[in-house]
Amino acid sequence: MAPSNDAFLAACRGRSPSRRPIWIMRQAGRYLPEYRAVRAKTSFETLCRTPALAAEVTVQPIERFDLDAAILFSDILSIADAFGIEVRFDPGPKIERPLRTAADVAILPPADVAACAYVFEAVRACVERIGGRVPLIGFAGAPWTVASYLVEGAGTRTFRHAKVLLWSEPDAFDHLLHVLAEATAAYLEAQVRAGADAVQVFESWGGALRPDLYRARAWPHLRRVLVRALATGVPVIAFVRGGEAVLRAIADDLPEGDLVVGIDHDVAMSAAVSIVGRDRVVQGNLDPMALFAPRAVLEAEAQAVLDGACGARGHIFNLGHGISKDTDPEQVAALVDFVHRA
Amino acid sequence: MAPSNDAFLAACRGRSPSRRPIWIMRQAGRYLPEYRAVRAKTSFETLCRTPALAAEVTVQPIERFDLDAAILFSDILSIADAFGIEVRFDPGPKIERPLRTAADVAILPPADVAACAYVFEAVRACVERIGGRVPLIGFAGAPWTVASYLVEGAGTRTFRHAKVLLWSEPDAFDHLLHVLAEATAAYLEAQVRAGADAVQVFESWGGALRPDLYRARAWPHLRRVLVRALATGVPVIAFVRGGEAVLRAIADDLPEGDLVVGIDHDVAMSAAVSIVGRDRVVQGNLDPMALFAPRAVLEAEAQAVLDGACGARGHIFNLGHGISKDTDPEQVAALVDFVHRA
Repeated sequence: MAPSNDAFLAACRGRSPSRRPIWIMRQAGRYLPEYRAVRAKTSFETLCRTPALAAEVTVQPIERFDLDAAILFSDILSIADAFGIEVRFDPGPKIERPLRTAADVAILPPADVAACAYVFEAVRACVERIGGRVPLIGFAGAPWTVASYLVEGAGTRTFRHAKVLLWSEPDAFDHLLHVLAEATAAYLEAQVRAGADAVQVFESWGGALRPDLYRARAWPHLRRVLVRALATGVPVIAFVRGGEAVLRAIADDLPEGDLVVGIDHDVAMSAAVSIVGRDRVVQGNLDPMALFAPRAVLEAEAQAVLDGACGARGHIFNLGHGISKDTDPEQVAALVDFVHRA
Repeated sequence: MAPSNDAFLAACRGRSPSRRPIWIMRQAGRYLPEYRAVRAKTSFETLCRTPALAAEVTVQPIERFDLDAAILFSDILSIADAFGIEVRFDPGPKIERPLRTAADVAILPPADVAACAYVFEAVRACVERIGGRVPLIGFAGAPWTVASYLVEGAGTRTFRHAKVLLWSEPDAFDHLLHVLAEATAAYLEAQVRAGADAVQVFESWGGALRPDLYRARAWPHLRRVLVRALATGVPVIAFVRGGEAVLRAIADDLPEGDLVVGIDHDVAMSAAVSIVGRDRVVQGNLDPMALFAPRAVLEAEAQAVLDGACGARGHIFNLGHGISKDTDPEQVAALVDFVHRA
């Protein structure tokens, strides 16, 4: 059943929306007191693994703000369950036995996305709690981004082990991204079957590889995921961080169909539209730090994003990266209102 | 007096060097046991502020490896002394009263680089200890990079306060970068008078601003520093991190003269040469993580840098960023040898 607020899906499909749609990356998160209240009683893992709780925090931002979409509360490493890989949060992700060598990669079991059933249950619970008000966006991490965690065993700023595997064991590296891509496609298909109205794939670490290396070694795997997700018939958002350089590297190879290109705040929106082409729908890209500026500055920065996107086929307003936990929710309310009035 | 090893200065000036010169960013640092031995007895501050000790660690890498240049051991925030701003290291830099507002910026005293006399003394001590073996590179941080520390009061991943100042108080932001540029030029001139054979300016946070914003708001201040440093007659290296996008943003505005363009590892060297032009001398840009790969992989990655730079007017081999503290010094020795044999 189509949600009563159709602005987001219309924009995704290149049709004229009733208003400029806006949602916010990490909109269900620590900047919201009601989220912190849930987390005070529940660990992050439990929240992710308990469909009713995941649905509760998923709807929090759409109850507080006039947002045009909800996004499933989950973690990009939930898919590790499909391989029987245990991830702890401490508070960042930690993996006991990271995949450092070709031998580690070779013994990966076949993916079983049924082990992620709690995620698909959470999608169903979200759909029920949203009650047709707004569309629900499902999501997954892109193969390179997920692989970097599985290889490093934790968050990283250097990507040392992932790069050494890429350089030293190219076949094992490619195999790892290949099996992750297959599992991720199945994972997104299951989210769509459970009721997700669109999906976003997060390539959070697109900028960690040189653009030519990203294009050659990581992008083909993400592209396969996008093509399979598009085949489900829902709009698909590809959010590949890495600014102008990575955008240039992939721009001529973006799949056709209802693909929305997520733009990070490391590139001016007008430049991004030139790079991906005016026949594309774009999403983004206000700097999350603009929410810390005085109201007039916040609005001027938001207007610059709107102006920059005016040449695109369509535009979904968003930040260029996840919202900061220190953000004042009043600033978010002001932003949503400004974008809708624009 | 010209150093007996002239390869680095010849390459900087676009002449044919006797061999491919190599030095390594942060070559005097924690990956060296002899450096850790000094630091076990001395704080980082004391090391920076004691010319004899700074000179001792400056020469450590040139005594261990067959490097073609030494670089002064110092900190990019030493220039804060010129404004009477105290920086503690804990272990990252901490500033008690960061410059958050226009009023904070307005009450900055006039710069007095004589307060940095210990740095110029360290240059003289380095020249003496090097004894004419290799040239000495002096250095400074670029205005935006130094300003970001002075505004944030510490290292940052978000650049929240610096960006809010840039957006909200453009005149104060520009004034801050202007006075930093003037002080930095005087600071580099004094290093050259004290005996530095070349200078490098580090724009470590060039990638923290969108390329169009970097070009408009930060680059003009760095450019003034480079022009004044070039007027001293020594070669000047501009190391602006931010990959391909920032390089494209500044490529048509690089000053003429003996300016070497430092290339980070977020761009393929061949792409960097196309962007800055084949009439430029470039420096860089091996990924520091390549030093963790097996020897054959390290050499293949180094060869790719050499191949990528072959169209440039000249090339100084270096990493694309500072060496990691966990690096095996034997790998550095192997790299230096490989580059000289290439």
